Amino acid sequence: MVNGVERPLDLLNQSKGKEILVQLKNEKQLVGTLLAFDIHINIVLSNTRELENGDIKRNIGLTFLRGDTIIYISPSKAS
Amino acid sequence: MVNGVERPLDLLNQSKGKEILVQLKNEKQLVGTLLAFDIHINIVLSNTRELENGDIKRNIGLTFLRGDTIIYISPSKAS
Amino acid sequence: MVNGVERPLDLLNQSKGKEILVQLKNEKQLVGTLLAFDIHINIVLSNTRELENGDIKRNIGLTFLRGDTIIYISPSKAS
Amino acid sequence: MVNGVERPLDLLNQSKGKEILVQLKNEKQLVGTLLAFDIHINIVLSNTRELENGDIKRNIGLTFLRGDTIIYISPSKAS
Amino acid sequence: MVNGVERPLDLLNQSKGKEILVQLKNEKQLVGTLLAFDIHINIVLSNTRELENGDIKRNIGLTFLRGDTIIYISPSKAS
Amino acid sequence: MVNGVERPLDLLNQSKGKEILVQLKNEKQLVGTLLAFDIHINIVLSNTRELENGDIKRNIGLTFLRGDTIIYISPSKAS
Amino acid sequence: MVNGVERPLDLLNQSKGKEILVQLKNEKQLVGTLLAFDIHINIVLSNTRELENGDIKRNIGLTFLRGDTIIYISPSKAS
Repeated sequence: MVNGVERPLDLLNQSKGKEILVQLKNEKQLVGTLLAFDIHINIVLSNTRELENGDIKRNIGLTFLRGDTIIYISPSKAS
Repeated sequence: MVNGVERPLDLLNQSKGKEILVQLKNEKQLVGTLLAFDIHINIVLSNTRELENGDIKRNIGLTFLRGDTIIYISPSKAS
Repeated sequence: MVNGVERPLDLLNQSKGKEILVQLKNEKQLVGTLLAFDIHINIVLSNTRELENGDIKRNIGLTFLRGDTIIYISPSKAS
Repeated sequence: MVNGVERPLDLLNQSKGKEILVQLKNEKQLVGTLLAFDIHINIVLSNTRELENGDIKRNIGLTFLRGDTIIYISPSKAS
Repeated sequence: MVNGVERPLDLLNQSKGKEILVQLKNEKQLVGTLLAFDIHINIVLSNTRELENGDIKRNIGLTFLRGDTIIYISPSKAS
Repeated sequence: MVNGVERPLDLLNQSKGKEILVQLKNEKQLVGTLLAFDIHINIVLSNTRELENGDIKRNIGLTFLRGDTIIYISPSKAS
Repeated sequence: MVNGVERPLDLLNQSKGKEILVQLKNEKQLVGTLLAFDIHINIVLSNTRELENGDIKRNIGLTFLRGDTIIYISPSKAS
């Protein structure tokens, strides 16, 4: 069913170039295309939209996001 | 009674492929099938549902969850 | 009076297989039988009950608990 | 006046076997006899009482307390 | 589409000398020209303006910002 | 004007045996004589008084204070 | 335009002996002359004034400030 996710970061690796949903600790979400990540789960998104209660609040384009602000990342619900 | 749990991570290892309940610090829960975890307790779940007060709030599918947002993980109460 | 507690983790070691009370930072308590712990004070409990204001709120069975959510662990008041 | 406290942990070492007051970040206090501590200031107390606004709220006996929940420890005001 | 962002810090490196928007954990934003950053995401901005709800609250000029106060950095929305 | 403070801890070193004011993150202050400190800014004070809004709330005598609860330490305003 | 700031700490190094504004996480500000700092951004200020909403609340003189309480440091707006 799900192949190739042996370690948590494998999922992020498979999601490069795809749109992901990022749930933040401050109750907001970011949606954008995953360009890069590191072991701190710092990530770079392109075409990023900030959502509040499911509505797009603003477009912030290319964005560097600190990993310690993230609750979860869901690749499948962003598209 | 309970076999093979010598270290805490042994329980997570035994729960791979099974449905688990994850209690988050933000008072919500995630339920999903455990695919992978690491020493930071970062985990990947498939078929993930987000719960609030016991009710399914939304389906978020395949999900990467940061370990530092977790209070507890209960394999036995998720199914 | 109290023997064999030279280092704090000695108390947890002596409590393996016994019921313990865990006071969480979120004001709730967990009661269960201590199966395993590590140096981060991540613990595994069996037959775990979640308490709120002293009342059992729900049974969550076998549970992995992150150490950074704990205030104190009391072996003597759980039974 | 005060002898033998060259490093902060010296005070904890001198307080072993004595009653101490522990002020927690959650506004409560614990009073008990110090049995053990480590470099994370994790401590074990015996005959522990939990106080709220100066009143004993409950007896929790032998207790393991995580260091990161502590504001201060006062040996002289516990007896 | 987006070239040269293999690791998250690459985006910050490309943004040196350009105006960036910094979203802080305290709900405010800083806008300024990125002069320097390090692996902790500590950054130095010149011509820094502090925004609240999108309005410039005050000019704070040359500024050292601690990385652990940042949610995201967006180079494309600052100009 | 101020001599011998090349590194921040030099100020604490110069303040040993003197009365200091410690501003805590929980909005309270401690005043006492600095006996010892370490690199985590854990400190030991003697003759410690806890202040709230500038008023002495209680005497807690000899006290071990965790460094991560401190905002600032001011030697000059304590006497 | 701005010379010699290759790494964030270069700005602090250039600011030694000058007055700086320090924005704290608790919404207050400190203004004082920077005497010393370390890699944790612990700093020592002389002639320190604590501000609330832009007004001087009190003079605290020579002060050791923990780095983890700081949001930003602005040398140019303090004078």
